[in-house]
Amino acid sequence: MNYPIGTAAGRFTGDPRKKNTRILKKKTEFGNRGMSFEEDINQTNQYYLAKSIAVIHKKPTPIQVVSVDYPKRSAAVITEAYYKEASTTDYNGVYQGRYIDFEAKETKNTTSFPLRNFHQHQIDHMKQCLSQNGVVFVLLWFSSLKRCFLLPAEDVIDCWDKHLQNSRKSIPLTLIESAGYEISLGIAPRIPYLAVLDEHML
Amino acid sequence: MNYPIGTAAGRFTGDPRKKNTRILKKKTEFGNRGMSFEEDINQTNQYYLAKSIAVIHKKPTPIQVVSVDYPKRSAAVITEAYYKEASTTDYNGVYQGRYIDFEAKETKNTTSFPLRNFHQHQIDHMKQCLSQNGVVFVLLWFSSLKRCFLLPAEDVIDCWDKHLQNSRKSIPLTLIESAGYEISLGIAPRIPYLAVLDEHML
Repeated sequence: MNYPIGTAAGRFTGDPRKKNTRILKKKTEFGNRGMSFEEDINQTNQYYLAKSIAVIHKKPTPIQVVSVDYPKRSAAVITEAYYKEASTTDYNGVYQGRYIDFEAKETKNTTSFPLRNFHQHQIDHMKQCLSQNGVVFVLLWFSSLKRCFLLPAEDVIDCWDKHLQNSRKSIPLTLIESAGYEISLGIAPRIPYLAVLDEHML
Repeated sequence: MNYPIGTAAGRFTGDPRKKNTRILKKKTEFGNRGMSFEEDINQTNQYYLAKSIAVIHKKPTPIQVVSVDYPKRSAAVITEAYYKEASTTDYNGVYQGRYIDFEAKETKNTTSFPLRNFHQHQIDHMKQCLSQNGVVFVLLWFSSLKRCFLLPAEDVIDCWDKHLQNSRKSIPLTLIESAGYEISLGIAPRIPYLAVLDEHML
């Protein structure tokens, strides 16, 4: 797939005639550090890659492209496109030969993690990867508490299946504390989740 | 990441005032069957998924979104976006606990596979995955010959490194025949590449 590569650097082209047009900005929600949880995970993965520790990437957001302009002497411009539903989780890769797969989610709640943050296709994908012997988990960020947990996919799936039976709409923090592993945030890497795998899951 | 999900089904909205606007169509290049090589790989991966044999997906094309409209009561419309360069290969996933990673390429040539089909970032990614003990390869489709090969990443990298020294601009078919494995095309799955891994690489 060879596309002309465009760059959006420095472009802020909101058309004042159009209402409801938003120029996308980065979130600044992660603790007091002006960073988002997603950016911290990406920085962590870049660290692991640079140090030859693991090769783990975030998958691009799936987008259905409908119409593309090809201006002369400049990069192709997508002029009509739509967000599509993903069929997998957001992150995967390889660590010491093992297949790694995870989803990252955050909440402002302080006592439980709402299951509405998850989608059926993500649960299905986690089940499929587990059945192929992948190492599958979620990273949960409680932004108000500033606490980060790794919870094995088995526990997420278990809560989800109970959720479907309407007995539970969220994962209690107490369950996450007992079944999961708290990750002490660092500087490099910021979210050292592979250390948890080394100690508890591999 | 929760986006409103849009659908592009049935939309053909090329603006006649705009020149050089193309509505994207599917390719019909793969043999005489009205299918593209990519579609056949996707069908193969769907087969493996449905049969619980492996979980392997194509990664979405990375796109930098600049501007989005949010019309009332309908899905978000991306109105300005650009193709970005990928940092990985196109396909990855898990098969019996092993990390699988590959790129798919096609040529009309009949005696060699041009190395200009590959990019430095793909070679770098293959090297990184190999160093993590991943199972890494390319699927090569010679459309004029209607022959498909699996070539281990080591051989691609070896040719690429020679290419950088200017002694070789393509991978000779004879080398692919001896170092790689020809895949007999089927119906379900159409491109049974996991059988090659079972027999030769795992």
